[in-house]
Amino acid sequence: MQFASDNTSGVHPKLMEALAKANEGYAPAYAGDRWTAELTERLRDMFQAPDALIYPMTSGTGTNAALLAAMSPPWGILYCHKSAHIEVDERNSVPFYSGGAKLKPLPGVGSRLDPEELRQAVIADSAKDDIHASPPVGVSITNLTEFGELYRPADIAALADAGRLPLHLDGARFANAIAASGTSPWEMTRELSALSLGATKTGAMAAEAAVIFDPSLKQAFESQRMRGGHNLSKARYVSAQMLAWLEDDLWLELATQANAMGARLAKGIKEIGGELAYKVDGNLVFARLPRAAHLKAKAKGAAYHLWGTGTALTGDPEEPLLARFVASWSTTEADVDALLAALSD
Amino acid sequence: MQFASDNTSGVHPKLMEALAKANEGYAPAYAGDRWTAELTERLRDMFQAPDALIYPMTSGTGTNAALLAAMSPPWGILYCHKSAHIEVDERNSVPFYSGGAKLKPLPGVGSRLDPEELRQAVIADSAKDDIHASPPVGVSITNLTEFGELYRPADIAALADAGRLPLHLDGARFANAIAASGTSPWEMTRELSALSLGATKTGAMAAEAAVIFDPSLKQAFESQRMRGGHNLSKARYVSAQMLAWLEDDLWLELATQANAMGARLAKGIKEIGGELAYKVDGNLVFARLPRAAHLKAKAKGAAYHLWGTGTALTGDPEEPLLARFVASWSTTEADVDALLAALSD
Amino acid sequence: MQFASDNTSGVHPKLMEALAKANEGYAPAYAGDRWTAELTERLRDMFQAPDALIYPMTSGTGTNAALLAAMSPPWGILYCHKSAHIEVDERNSVPFYSGGAKLKPLPGVGSRLDPEELRQAVIADSAKDDIHASPPVGVSITNLTEFGELYRPADIAALADAGRLPLHLDGARFANAIAASGTSPWEMTRELSALSLGATKTGAMAAEAAVIFDPSLKQAFESQRMRGGHNLSKARYVSAQMLAWLEDDLWLELATQANAMGARLAKGIKEIGGELAYKVDGNLVFARLPRAAHLKAKAKGAAYHLWGTGTALTGDPEEPLLARFVASWSTTEADVDALLAALSD
Amino acid sequence: MQFASDNTSGVHPKLMEALAKANEGYAPAYAGDRWTAELTERLRDMFQAPDALIYPMTSGTGTNAALLAAMSPPWGILYCHKSAHIEVDERNSVPFYSGGAKLKPLPGVGSRLDPEELRQAVIADSAKDDIHASPPVGVSITNLTEFGELYRPADIAALADAGRLPLHLDGARFANAIAASGTSPWEMTRELSALSLGATKTGAMAAEAAVIFDPSLKQAFESQRMRGGHNLSKARYVSAQMLAWLEDDLWLELATQANAMGARLAKGIKEIGGELAYKVDGNLVFARLPRAAHLKAKAKGAAYHLWGTGTALTGDPEEPLLARFVASWSTTEADVDALLAALSD
Repeated sequence: MQFASDNTSGVHPKLMEALAKANEGYAPAYAGDRWTAELTERLRDMFQAPDALIYPMTSGTGTNAALLAAMSPPWGILYCHKSAHIEVDERNSVPFYSGGAKLKPLPGVGSRLDPEELRQAVIADSAKDDIHASPPVGVSITNLTEFGELYRPADIAALADAGRLPLHLDGARFANAIAASGTSPWEMTRELSALSLGATKTGAMAAEAAVIFDPSLKQAFESQRMRGGHNLSKARYVSAQMLAWLEDDLWLELATQANAMGARLAKGIKEIGGELAYKVDGNLVFARLPRAAHLKAKAKGAAYHLWGTGTALTGDPEEPLLARFVASWSTTEADVDALLAALSD
Repeated sequence: MQFASDNTSGVHPKLMEALAKANEGYAPAYAGDRWTAELTERLRDMFQAPDALIYPMTSGTGTNAALLAAMSPPWGILYCHKSAHIEVDERNSVPFYSGGAKLKPLPGVGSRLDPEELRQAVIADSAKDDIHASPPVGVSITNLTEFGELYRPADIAALADAGRLPLHLDGARFANAIAASGTSPWEMTRELSALSLGATKTGAMAAEAAVIFDPSLKQAFESQRMRGGHNLSKARYVSAQMLAWLEDDLWLELATQANAMGARLAKGIKEIGGELAYKVDGNLVFARLPRAAHLKAKAKGAAYHLWGTGTALTGDPEEPLLARFVASWSTTEADVDALLAALSD
Repeated sequence: MQFASDNTSGVHPKLMEALAKANEGYAPAYAGDRWTAELTERLRDMFQAPDALIYPMTSGTGTNAALLAAMSPPWGILYCHKSAHIEVDERNSVPFYSGGAKLKPLPGVGSRLDPEELRQAVIADSAKDDIHASPPVGVSITNLTEFGELYRPADIAALADAGRLPLHLDGARFANAIAASGTSPWEMTRELSALSLGATKTGAMAAEAAVIFDPSLKQAFESQRMRGGHNLSKARYVSAQMLAWLEDDLWLELATQANAMGARLAKGIKEIGGELAYKVDGNLVFARLPRAAHLKAKAKGAAYHLWGTGTALTGDPEEPLLARFVASWSTTEADVDALLAALSD
Repeated sequence: MQFASDNTSGVHPKLMEALAKANEGYAPAYAGDRWTAELTERLRDMFQAPDALIYPMTSGTGTNAALLAAMSPPWGILYCHKSAHIEVDERNSVPFYSGGAKLKPLPGVGSRLDPEELRQAVIADSAKDDIHASPPVGVSITNLTEFGELYRPADIAALADAGRLPLHLDGARFANAIAASGTSPWEMTRELSALSLGATKTGAMAAEAAVIFDPSLKQAFESQRMRGGHNLSKARYVSAQMLAWLEDDLWLELATQANAMGARLAKGIKEIGGELAYKVDGNLVFARLPRAAHLKAKAKGAAYHLWGTGTALTGDPEEPLLARFVASWSTTEADVDALLAALSD
């Protein structure tokens, strides 16, 4: 009953096979290898972006920080949702990489940015056109969000229109977002300047790609990546994984499974009287359940996180606590049913 | 009719005299002079803090940034009001000096921090006690606030109690706050780890003092001050100004005059139908007046700032715009009355 | 004839097997897994350091930068050899991570630091005990050096004695150094505060370990690692590789092979009239050979780097150019002999 | 007998007068005042640079750091002499402001950069045109140097030609350099991208100007200045001082006096058997004198610094120690003669 995170699951066998195949002989270091070249072509096609720049990476945080630092001078403002990973889970990595840029977290609606709120924030921050003030320079969104909600292409277009600023997308769960939306990677990314494309949470070992659509970011990004320690020498092993991941749409197959398990879990939780805290668009389920339910489930070995403040299991057994359950590509119906049983027995 | 800022006024004659007197012969550089030694004694007495460290400075922004960077590691969270100068007017100086620390702006009540909101924010940010999260490390308040409101000692004590974090006070208008509160400098600062004590806006040339109550900040502050370019060689000229400013409570006399002119202006604005946007505790008056009033006043040469977004003077003449009027130590009753006449004629 | 770098070679089959074995079921993220726990015990034993802290990493640059930033305040001086990777190959990563610390490169003797020179530098930089100056705070050495030379334990002790400063060792080729020296890992590290232990260049995929001997570095290092994007979620795959690498001294076997091929190549180069630019202690061979030799070898597909300025192959065919040849764990005698033949035919 | 530094002397009476005159009524803040406008015109004329940008500043360190940070990305290399103030006396301010740029100190000849050495360094650092390496981006020189030597315009042109990089000049003693060279400010600056023009050491209170010749530096410099805390509110008081300083070539008169006293002192020291360590081109005299001489002079109250390591006055009385003597605009012949007497009695 492993629902702690999608990064506790293993690597899909086809990616392991790809690693084994890529492990033949010598290959030029620092992304000069043929797997990276092929990945570049593959992603350019997928995103219909013949000039996109592709960089194999091992870290989502490193990818986000290096891309956003390339998009902002040290004195800029970057907008994000208040729950964004870059805001709450990366220990100030964006001001670090950028040398001082400010993340401005917005409350949004649910876990998503609200275009009108973004518009007002940009207008307000632009009003004082003065060297004292920090200028708005970009927006970062997460899709699926940290609470599992989906932005559709129209939502992203609305944010682009509202902010009139370059957009970055943290795609740690990009596969889940594409699978959930039924749209194409191209539709989902056409408004973006840069994308952090994560495979790690969807069946890879430690494989991400930085995708740059705005070529003016090239020099700054490559410099940030290098000095951050993210210019991987044996890049072939990341690129080979990502190629296998994309092959025959394996990535979408894995994300579809994770999403389906999220939906099954959400349905089951409602049936046992739990309350969903956010819309369940993919593989993340945030639910309020009585303390007593958690006590039972934890006693039976269910692994997942309680969320927010006041998460002690002591207290009124009927008082609900917020929990996060994450399904992954390897979650089975039996896993979900066992969790539900543990929570409700 | 100069109400643009209290930094458009000149230097009080007694400070000019002090400069002339200090300009005799040689003096050791870098605060090794006797004026700085005397200032240190004077301020230690005033704050009843025999171990306080005192540094003459020329910049409020530099003082704030170097103090806050000494209070926070690069991965910390410092709380402030969303209108704080450090948040909106210093072009990301705090993340710059600290190497990445996050200012977390809170909405507060009016322009002041709300203790309960602060408490909740600290609890929420402390909940995830994990290397991913940024730990709360301090609070910065401004007194008078950017919108002219006063914190009394009890208000500061409530914030100290709510946040249980080291406190910094941006005292660019500390004189106005003391004059407005009728309390002593000691009462106002007893909860503080550090104070930016500003004289520039109250009659000095470019004279501030960094006051450190928590001696553990010494090494980091001195290093930040040095590398920031704020270790003044001819420090005697700042210290001599501040001594004259403190002498016979001149500083409070000047602030009292500025505050009285603020009160006179506030009263007059209400009489001509304007609406005050914030409580007027000192020398800052934020008021909503019809566009037509501003057109008239500007035409007559009144100098002050319109505030926020949508400040164009074109549009419905009856629709009010927010204006900021700042009285200074040299503002006279005639100045105030002339402004009121210009706004209402 | 692949002698471009030891990071162009593949992953040793035993490490691939270990990856496959580690890929079973779920494991806690962020180094909470059992492989990392076992690696910690294994390395503590090996270094006879029961309190050492061990962190699986994927990047040598990231490991170096995060460790050195934990060792230095933003205003410190860290000494290194002028050829150190951190000085010439990491795009200013140390001043970046540390927020401004200065790497002070010393000429040394060959590619190694000279204790007397270090002593003098530290004395000179300590002489001005003043806030203007930057204080000496640490020393970083590389073993094997960037030019393939070895520090023996006595050499490191001499540097520790000369500098009286905390020591960091960049061990990207630590295995080669141990194999070359015949000493134990404990002897080689007993003077260190921190070690970057690299396996990537000696048969791993992207696997390093940060080893902290001085526990006071813990909090700063963990924070730097996190905000740098180096807190790996699926850490088990790095730790499992390193365990297999250490198992039955495979690491030393691989390094011994690489070193032996370095020696064979060095001997061969002298026999064909080349001149060695540095002592060949391990797997790196720097040699001066006539341009004509390089033209022939390159034409036959030999892969290696010409070094320094003026490396154009046009020019006087007899004039020697400096070349770097790197042998790896997978280099064979036949590879070396083919290269020598290509250079001399 | 005050020879500790030219920043221990006072402010010239004409500058005090100018301050008093500028202290009339209100003036727009942040360099919007008429004194700053006039200073801009005055300096543009003087440098024959109609598009130069002029910023009143209070700190030489702040001016240097903000200008150099505008000239370099965080991953650049800036060359300077190993004795440069930015290298040894500003506590890592350049890597701080720039977010990581590397100062590369060169040994030079005496205290000046050597064009050929610079050329070789730039060639070597450019040789590895690779993302790992840090690219050369600029050169900073000091005139007079920290050891009192002069660059003439032809020397600067030779450095510009050798490095083919943008040049910054730290002109903390620019007046002394112009007075010593007999050339015009235009001739001295025609190769520069930016100049830190210091008046503080030559009779001002705390008055510098950042002079930008390359307009592409504008936005980055203004941002660095702001976030560094160097965007002065009451700028009129700096600009008024500088105008008085430039008026009727007072600045050159003061520097000429300081230089003459330096020459008189140098001559006298040789006559009493001392040895000059550097060429005395201006107001700085570095001399080796027996310990016994220093003991006598110190006992008589002479104020100056012993330099470098091993400056204890105990030891062999005949063994010479290096001393730095600084003459200022207010140094008199009697002062020099008294010092010489104290050293030789």
